[in-house]
Amino acid sequence: MELDKAAQELLFTEARTANAFSPEPVSDETLRAIWELAKWAPTAMNSNPLRVVYLRTEEAKARLIPHMSEGNQAKTATAPVVAVLAADSAFHEHMPHLFPIREGMREYFAGDDAARTHTAEFNSALQAGYFLLAVRAAGLAAGPMGGFDRAGVDGEFFADGRHRSIMVVNIGKPGEGAWFDRLPRLDYDEVVTLA
Amino acid sequence: MELDKAAQELLFTEARTANAFSPEPVSDETLRAIWELAKWAPTAMNSNPLRVVYLRTEEAKARLIPHMSEGNQAKTATAPVVAVLAADSAFHEHMPHLFPIREGMREYFAGDDAARTHTAEFNSALQAGYFLLAVRAAGLAAGPMGGFDRAGVDGEFFADGRHRSIMVVNIGKPGEGAWFDRLPRLDYDEVVTLA
Repeated sequence: MELDKAAQELLFTEARTANAFSPEPVSDETLRAIWELAKWAPTAMNSNPLRVVYLRTEEAKARLIPHMSEGNQAKTATAPVVAVLAADSAFHEHMPHLFPIREGMREYFAGDDAARTHTAEFNSALQAGYFLLAVRAAGLAAGPMGGFDRAGVDGEFFADGRHRSIMVVNIGKPGEGAWFDRLPRLDYDEVVTLA
Repeated sequence: MELDKAAQELLFTEARTANAFSPEPVSDETLRAIWELAKWAPTAMNSNPLRVVYLRTEEAKARLIPHMSEGNQAKTATAPVVAVLAADSAFHEHMPHLFPIREGMREYFAGDDAARTHTAEFNSALQAGYFLLAVRAAGLAAGPMGGFDRAGVDGEFFADGRHRSIMVVNIGKPGEGAWFDRLPRLDYDEVVTLA
C-alpha cells in the first residue's frame, strides 16, 4: 500500500460507523472541505449526480427526524450536522458543462428515462461512498443510515420532485456509546475470484 | 482535514482515471491488499453485496474484451489486471453471519425481491466507490468503465445468474497517454444546500 498506515486507519481499517455524537460543532468550512475533497473522485461520463443538504440547526434537523426510522431518531438528534444525500434525476442538464468531450449527452439522457435513472442512481451511490470517506478524512465520524421514509424526506426537502434521497449521514465527533461491536466481513475467497 | 495532503492527493485531488497502462504487473498480494482495505468501509446492515473477479491473464481478459464498448477495448487490453465488479443478488444468504444483531434478515430479503434488489444495487455501487479509492491507495491507477454489454459479461463470468456486473475497472501503473484533460466539477452551490 502506498497510502500510509495512519491514513488507512483513518479512512478504512479503524474508522467505524458512529451511533452517538458529541455536541462539538462542525464548521461550515469543514463541511465545504468534505465536499471539495469528495467531488474529485470519478463518475460515469463525469455525470456527478449527487446532491447534498447539510442540516446544521435544530430547526433543520426537526424537519428530518420524524421521517427517520424509530431506531435512527435518537442518534440523529445527537449529531451536530446531518447530511441528506440525494440523486439529481435531472443531472443531465449539466452534461454540456461536465462532459464537453461528447456532444449530445444531455439530449441522449433526456430521451432515455431508464438510462438517466440508472446513471443517477448508480453514480450517486458511488459518490456517497466517496462522501463517507471524505467525512472520515476530515477527522469526523460518519453515521450513514438507510432507514428513513424516502417519500417523506423527498417531500420535505425536495419538493421540486427532481431529487430522490438516497442516504442520510450523521456527522460529528463521536459521543459516549458511539461504537457497537464491529461486525464481521466476508472471507476473501467468498468475495474475490482470481481468473 | 485530518488526512494529510499527500494522502488527499493520492486518493482524491491528484488521482485521475487512467486510459492507458504500462505492462508492469500487479501482484496477487497487491490485489488482495486492495480488497482487504476496501472491505472495511460501511454498507447497509453490513450487507456487503459486492463481488470481484480479477482478470490477470491475457486469456482471462480475452473473455471480457469482446463485451466491452468499442472505445473501451484498446485500453482494457493494455491493463495488467482488470476487475469485474458485480452485485450478488443472493447476498442475503450471508446475513446470519454478517448481521447477527438482527435475526430474520435472510428471510426478510428472501421474501422481498424489491428490497433485496435495491440493497444489492445500492450497496454494491457504494462499495465500488470504496474499491476505486483502495486501488489508488495501493499506488495504482484505476480506470472504471460502465461501457460494456452487461448481459454478455454476466453470461461469460456469472453463468449462475446470481451476480450482475456493475462496473469494469482497469488496474495498473499508468502508461503513455494515460491522462485526458481533467473535466470540470459542479460549483459548491450547485451541489450543496445549507439548511
